[in-house]
Amino acid sequence: MVKGHQSFIFESKPVILASATSAGPFEAQGPLAEDIDLIHDDIYLGQDSFEKAEKLMLEGAAVKTMEKAGINKYDVGLFISGDLMNQIISSSFTARTIGIPYLGIFGACSSSVEGLSIAAAYVDGQKVKYVLTGASSHNSSAEKQFRYPNEYGAQKPPTAQWTVTGAGACLLSTQGNGPKVTGATIGRIVDMGISDPFNMGAAMAPAAVDTIEAHFRDMEIEPDYYDIIVTGDLGSIGHKITLDKLIENGMRISEKIYKDCGMMIYDSEKQQVFAGGSGCACSAITVYGHFLNRMRRGEIKKMLAVATGALHSPLSYQQKESIPCIAHAVAIEM
Amino acid sequence: MVKGHQSFIFESKPVILASATSAGPFEAQGPLAEDIDLIHDDIYLGQDSFEKAEKLMLEGAAVKTMEKAGINKYDVGLFISGDLMNQIISSSFTARTIGIPYLGIFGACSSSVEGLSIAAAYVDGQKVKYVLTGASSHNSSAEKQFRYPNEYGAQKPPTAQWTVTGAGACLLSTQGNGPKVTGATIGRIVDMGISDPFNMGAAMAPAAVDTIEAHFRDMEIEPDYYDIIVTGDLGSIGHKITLDKLIENGMRISEKIYKDCGMMIYDSEKQQVFAGGSGCACSAITVYGHFLNRMRRGEIKKMLAVATGALHSPLSYQQKESIPCIAHAVAIEM
Repeated sequence: MVKGHQSFIFESKPVILASATSAGPFEAQGPLAEDIDLIHDDIYLGQDSFEKAEKLMLEGAAVKTMEKAGINKYDVGLFISGDLMNQIISSSFTARTIGIPYLGIFGACSSSVEGLSIAAAYVDGQKVKYVLTGASSHNSSAEKQFRYPNEYGAQKPPTAQWTVTGAGACLLSTQGNGPKVTGATIGRIVDMGISDPFNMGAAMAPAAVDTIEAHFRDMEIEPDYYDIIVTGDLGSIGHKITLDKLIENGMRISEKIYKDCGMMIYDSEKQQVFAGGSGCACSAITVYGHFLNRMRRGEIKKMLAVATGALHSPLSYQQKESIPCIAHAVAIEM
Repeated sequence: MVKGHQSFIFESKPVILASATSAGPFEAQGPLAEDIDLIHDDIYLGQDSFEKAEKLMLEGAAVKTMEKAGINKYDVGLFISGDLMNQIISSSFTARTIGIPYLGIFGACSSSVEGLSIAAAYVDGQKVKYVLTGASSHNSSAEKQFRYPNEYGAQKPPTAQWTVTGAGACLLSTQGNGPKVTGATIGRIVDMGISDPFNMGAAMAPAAVDTIEAHFRDMEIEPDYYDIIVTGDLGSIGHKITLDKLIENGMRISEKIYKDCGMMIYDSEKQQVFAGGSGCACSAITVYGHFLNRMRRGEIKKMLAVATGALHSPLSYQQKESIPCIAHAVAIEM
């Protein structure tokens, strides 16, 4: 059901039957390691390219999710997935392997929540019994495509972020036990004129603010409705801008409930990740893994997950365009 | 409602209130020129890059569609769009201009029908009053990205296709008059091992066969249920493979009702387009433009539109991967 101008309420409350995550060795050194199901010691995963390694991580998360739920892939009606690669090859090649009817999406780092929101809409409205959604990123494939290959050793400014190597998947169903997707807010593009691909947090923060405000306006609730509000990968700079702006605009929200996945996935003392983590896998691992596990343990009852995406391309950057940003939100309740 | 394993029936029958298309000068010389709303004489559209020109064509089609329907953009709840560019910049930059809540999709040349099917699902299940969907491609931006810049003058084999310069958009609603989207079949990836980006028709044909067969199996109807079954951009080679294979597999289907957009959009006698047209705009112009106009005039009552997509990237091709292909179908009835 439509609620307000940008939001949906999923009346049947689609259940997240299971979720699973995979990641590389660097993420395994971070504080969320226990929430990662499949940890790989080799960033190549034994493949001959980073892109093939990324695909294997997404496949792993997808298969592990169905395994956890005890659901056969032939019973899954839809696979909805996105990633950062040109033509989302990680998702499409994973769809080839698992053979489930497939809808490719692109929301850059917002893909984890874009996919979850579309999956919930299909389960709710069309009553698809099982829908799988996934997202992935790989530090080496993303840096090479969007900035410079890591092997160049290019210097980065402190505003830069570290693309997470990993993937996550969720299996939604019309019935069962688990966290429930109760609503979603679909973002509009917000572009404040920032064109620096080394400062994504600042570029994406206004989109996060826009969607968070739209969510509370549409749903007619206050921030304290949620135990946690978490953005996808704004990092320390974007998180601060978002929090300051929300408070400036009159929202009663504090650092106690407002977190950012990019500030949680790595140990900022021991791991040099500049302003924090980023990439589709940043929110996929933190939301699909860490936070859903906490919900299952009863530590959190209500969460608003807001994943942000920078929808530029290297070409649009070269053509002097600024970065169009977006944020999508899903409400998950236990 | 789910029907069979891959299909949906849209019980509320979402209405296509309006649709509009735009194209370049070469398409204006083709037999479907009268169905193109916005014809541009300059392939640059006065911009300094082909990518910016492509974005303007998509914007044009989107704005023209809302204008035809008499609907203000502030009343449109969702914009769903995809294109061939890396990170679908044509769609995302159009979403920035029109400011409607946006879901980016990627299905390569299947985007026109992927978008239409998701739009219909949202209108049907979530009761969004107005959903806009769009798709675009530009010959010069696509050739440069996927093969060689046209300026190189590289020779092409006769199996190659000509990427259509254009865009299309549809506005769907819960109520009103016009052609109705009654069902959809979501494709699975089919990959027969073809890796030649100059022979997309042959690569994509098996995906078209798979989805067409799934549609009739799921819906429990025969091909003669439709006045027309049209694939997106298989061209003459892919069309023949698809028709032969469907007949070989026992389907009663003939060239009388089975057409391909790639064989219709250009004049194969006068225009040198090798095996035919391709690109997101090929099916967008032919289905959203030509065929919907014929439905509005009462010449066709029932159509199955099947758009195919080659989901590779230049990088996956360089890494010796074959081309994963997909086809999505929507049933439209007057």
